[in-house]
Parts: sequence; C-alpha cells; structure tokens
Amino acid sequence: MTFQTNLSASQKMPEAEAFAVILAGGGGTRLWPASRRKRPKQLLHLGGGESLLEAAVRRARALFGEGHTLVVTAADQEEQIRRELPDLPPGDIVVEPEPRNTAAAVGLGAAEAYRRRGPGALLAVLPADPHIGDEAAFAAAIRTALSHAGEAIVTIGLQPTHPETGFGYIRRGAAVAGSSDTFAVDAFVEKPTREVAESYVASGAYLWNSGMFFLSAGRMLEEARRHLPALGAILDAAIAAGDFRAAVQASYGKAPKISIDHGIMEKAGGLRVVPGAFGWNDVGSWAAVPALRTPDARGNVVIGDATLIEGDGNIVVADDGAPFVSVLGVRDLVVVATRDAILVIPKDRAQDVKRIVEAVGQAGRRDLL
Amino acid sequence: MTFQTNLSASQKMPEAEAFAVILAGGGGTRLWPASRRKRPKQLLHLGGGESLLEAAVRRARALFGEGHTLVVTAADQEEQIRRELPDLPPGDIVVEPEPRNTAAAVGLGAAEAYRRRGPGALLAVLPADPHIGDEAAFAAAIRTALSHAGEAIVTIGLQPTHPETGFGYIRRGAAVAGSSDTFAVDAFVEKPTREVAESYVASGAYLWNSGMFFLSAGRMLEEARRHLPALGAILDAAIAAGDFRAAVQASYGKAPKISIDHGIMEKAGGLRVVPGAFGWNDVGSWAAVPALRTPDARGNVVIGDATLIEGDGNIVVADDGAPFVSVLGVRDLVVVATRDAILVIPKDRAQDVKRIVEAVGQAGRRDLL
Repeated sequence: MTFQTNLSASQKMPEAEAFAVILAGGGGTRLWPASRRKRPKQLLHLGGGESLLEAAVRRARALFGEGHTLVVTAADQEEQIRRELPDLPPGDIVVEPEPRNTAAAVGLGAAEAYRRRGPGALLAVLPADPHIGDEAAFAAAIRTALSHAGEAIVTIGLQPTHPETGFGYIRRGAAVAGSSDTFAVDAFVEKPTREVAESYVASGAYLWNSGMFFLSAGRMLEEARRHLPALGAILDAAIAAGDFRAAVQASYGKAPKISIDHGIMEKAGGLRVVPGAFGWNDVGSWAAVPALRTPDARGNVVIGDATLIEGDGNIVVADDGAPFVSVLGVRDLVVVATRDAILVIPKDRAQDVKRIVEAVGQAGRRDLL
Repeated sequence: MTFQTNLSASQKMPEAEAFAVILAGGGGTRLWPASRRKRPKQLLHLGGGESLLEAAVRRARALFGEGHTLVVTAADQEEQIRRELPDLPPGDIVVEPEPRNTAAAVGLGAAEAYRRRGPGALLAVLPADPHIGDEAAFAAAIRTALSHAGEAIVTIGLQPTHPETGFGYIRRGAAVAGSSDTFAVDAFVEKPTREVAESYVASGAYLWNSGMFFLSAGRMLEEARRHLPALGAILDAAIAAGDFRAAVQASYGKAPKISIDHGIMEKAGGLRVVPGAFGWNDVGSWAAVPALRTPDARGNVVIGDATLIEGDGNIVVADDGAPFVSVLGVRDLVVVATRDAILVIPKDRAQDVKRIVEAVGQAGRRDLL
C-alpha cells in the first residue's frame, strides 16, 4: 500500500512507499500515580477516552495506511501494547528484546521497513506520547517533511509557544532551495537555561526538537553503520536473517544505548527542518492535561468518578478502580487517584511528582512505582 | 461497687452509687469519608490509636468503676459497639431498638441504673464523642457535678474559648449557697449568631452547653413522667418488667423523638451548672484533628499510610485499606482517604464536608454515605 494522501497539487508527493515508525517503548512516571514504570503515559485511558498511543496509531494509519504503521516497543510492554492495539496486524508491532534507547529502536523499525520494501522505503519516526491538537496541520507538516525524506534527513521543529527549559532546540538556517517551508538545520542545541530559552524564542530562529525524523530506511542503515557500527551490524544481520525476530533477540543486547538525537542526528549532515505548529503537547506533567481537554467555565478538568464543588483551575482525575474523589473549594490543584495511590500537588509544582516517586521508592514501596 | 474517687477532703462525696451513662447512639458524617451514617466518629481509629468511644469508656471506668459504666447505643450500631468494647460486661451496653434521640436514650440508661440500684442511683450522662485534653480537670468537674446530683439536676458548662456559633450556650446565675464552683442555671440559649456569640464570650456569664448532665435515676424518671409522659410510661413499664429488653423492644417505638435538652432540661427547675475547662473538643470537623494530635514542626498532622513533602498546616489521613496518599507543597488542606472515597478540602472550609455528603447522596451513591 502506498502513502495515503490528500495532497493539494502544489505539494510534492514522495515517490517511494512510506512507513510510520511509532516509538512506544518508553516507561514513565511523570503522570504518576496513573503512569508507572510499566504503564507509560501513552497507554493511559484517562476518563475512558482514546489513549495517546491509540491516537498516534489512528493518525498514522490515516496517513500511511494499513500495513504501513509500525509500532516499536520493548518486550516488557509488548503484551499491553498488543492488548491496546488489537486491530494492528501483529507483525507490525516490532519488539525490542530489551529497551536500548531510541537509536536502536529506530534502527529496528528501519530494518523492518527495509525488509518489506527495500532501502527506498521512507520512514516517519514519531513518538507515541505527544498529544496533537490540530491533526490537519500535523498531517500537512508530515507530508512536507516526507517530500524531502528521499534526499535528506528531515525533522519537524515545533514553533515555541513559551521559553521552555525542558526541551532541546533546533537552530534553523536558510530555506532549502525551491522551498518556502523547509530549512537547513544549523544546529541541535541542548536544553537551555531560562534566560537562554527566552533569547531563543525572541530570535525566531529556534524551534523545539520534536523527536520526529523523516528519512529513508537505507539512509538510516548507512548512518547507523557510520556512527553506531555495532548497531549497524546488528541491523544488517537481522535484515539478512531468515528469522528477523530471532536474529534481533540474539544480538540486540549489544546495541549501544544512545538516543537517535545524540547517536545519529547530531552527527549526520545536510539535515532539514520543517517548522510545525499543530498544538503539540508532550503531556510532560499533570499541568498539561487541561490543554488536552476542554476545561469547565472555572478552568477545572474532572475525569472519572469524581465530584468537584466550587473549585477553580483544578485537575481532578479518578482512574478506573480508584475510590470516589471529592474536592471542594480548592484552587489550581492536581488531585489524582488510582486503585492504590493518591496524589495531591499544586498545578505549578506538577513537575515535582518525581520527588514523590523518589520518596515512594526510598520507602521501599516498589509496588507503587 | 461504689463511686470510685480520689476526692480531697473539701469535696462533698455523693452518698449514693453513681453510673456513667455514655450516649453512643449517634451517627454522623462530619468526618466523612472516615465517618459514615453507620460508622460514627466515636468509633474512628485514626492511625490505630484509641477511638473517642474507647477513651470515653476508659475515663468513665476509672471514675465509676467496673459495672457502673453503661453505654447506650442503637440496635443498628450494637454489633460494632460490642466489637469496639470487648471488655465491657455485655449487660452494660443498653440497646435502643431504634434511635429516638437523647431524651429516650438517657431514659433507658436511667431505667437500667434504677433497676440495679433504685431511684437514688446517680447518673453522669456523657456524650461518647468529645475529646478531652485534660482528663484530671475533667474528672474533678464530674466529681463536683455529682456532689450536687442528689439534690438537683446539674450540668457542666464549658468555658468558651472562642465565639462559637455551632453550640448552644448556658447563662449562669448566682453561685449556689455554700459553693464557689457551682452556679444556678439562668437559661439555656440557642446557637447564637456570630455577633451574639461574641457578646456572650465578652460577658463572661455564658458557657457552652456540653451535653453532660448529672441527676439521680429517680429524678430522671420524675421529669420524664412530667414532661414526656409517653417516655415516662415506657420507662416505668420496663423497670417493672421481668424482661427489660423485651419490654423496651415492645414499646420504644412510641417514645417521643426529642433531645434531653429540649425535652427535659429546659423545662426542669433548679438546674445548676459547674463551669469546666478541660480541653473539651467535639471534633466537629477535620479542622479539629490537629488539637487531638501533636502536629509536626510545620503544623501538619499525618495519620496512616501517607507521605507529605513540603507542606504546612495540613491534615492528611489514610484510613486502613485506603490507597497510599502522597501530598506535596500544599498548605492548610485536609486530605482524607478511605478504601472507597477521598476528600480534599481547605481546612477553613472543613464544615462544608456536609455539602459533599449531600452531593454524594444526590448522585445516588448511598454506598458512600
């Protein structure tokens, strides 16, 4: 099946077949107690709605079509990912024997696409867990990025909405010849201080690193061989093997544990960036949840079996199996309950959930992590 | 067994035998979700400590002795009250077939004491659920009140510590002849407005109505016959019957539903009041809990399986079977979790728990009431 599209006549179509490679291997506790090491946030069904992973797969299937949406996950999450995605062809879930960070995970996805359609297969590497507010704009940015992916490595850089210090940035260079919406990548820069982040946003030349990359399977293999030769060897052997999964199982433990950003993208040449603005939200803490839902007139978001009386700006979440949650008269508070744990924290300190998770771990309560 | 005492020589000893009549029949939701209609606050073991009822019985047994501590409760709470008080002689738990308010409950206790020791038996009617901070001062006030109870109805009036609008008041009159610590009761007055309460406290002539009354069993029967004749008839018949419990069972449903205050005390003559100051606390809401416990250096009280990081002035309670409670960075908040419900409310709005209970009821969640 070929790249599904509703492109206008002015947009370039990619010639080759394209695959989404959705990275769904991460754990996470930033939305603790709902998210756990083994129940990452992309699997959360807050209030019975679509999970972030389900949304990512739905968007990808609409763009790339059936059989062209690969989900890469780690063995310890395979079972719950398969349960989460019963409609996905079983072979389209690509399993890492153990988590080895994103360079290896992207490599696995690239190897699977290579086996299916050869080196010209285009890859759209997409994280599973951001929320996308404007899906049409998202699809348009992906189409633009893919239109360059046969000749270069492309990323989407997010238009910053505030001087975020929790993300890496991309400094964009000159527009690519013949294009008004695609630029050379001047540099990837690390997470900045607040002051530096403000200067980045003011300059207009910096974009957030989205973790989305577009390139051909052949190019991914070449870059792996050059910059991460142990990974390149593993991938070449797996592509050549009769039993892909067995070959990966035997060798994957030797893959370098490094991110795709550090391991490949910062070393590769000729990168391009497509600026994007489509309501991207990495749901990095509970404070991000109101952006995903429509708050009530007083700015509250209430999800699940809960009642809120006379509150303002609160986020109240009762997970399946949690006790009934009742909140009265509070402001800008996060209250989250699950079957076995409860969190109460001010919204503006939602990042400090990690301190609670640490304390829980130090108290020996591994059952809650 | 006679009235146990460590009286000084200057204190009058009551001639007759005395009984504590502990009223333990009330339900309550003011400490919801820990307290429920069928689990009133006197039964709460917050953090594994002694319950309010256990403390009331312990204090009474120390003063009145074994076999002289009667606990009056309603049939629907009998089982849990017996479980709570395994050391009390079974016959000392006096069971109302159904709750009929406090006049009838005191009448039952009086009838039981009358059967055991005749009309001269003295009664100390004590609610089960206040917390007493200074037990020695409490015992002294009871001894003083009992020393008058053979000749008058006596109550203890609490020295107000603030202009409380949630209590009734007693206006005291002249000192009883020959006594410096006992006064005539001028009037019982209803719960005042804030302004009126302030004038009461400023005047020095008003005391809080404690709900503690001291009188003989015979006097109680006389007053019942006079002011609540239906109750008087029930009690007389029960005293005369061979099977007290069966007689009560047959007739108690006809007892008037009225409080001892309205039904008898406000109508009886010659009442006396002993002012008392002994750290009395009716635990009328969660905000009262810090007075019962020793808060930490930042004013927090944490009870049960919970962790609190960087908070000030909070009350955090995890009941047995509740999820683990974690709280960070909040101030003056009440967080209470049970197996099936969670409450989050500002400490200064703790009285508004009743609004949540109403909302829960309106939502049809009777299981949570």
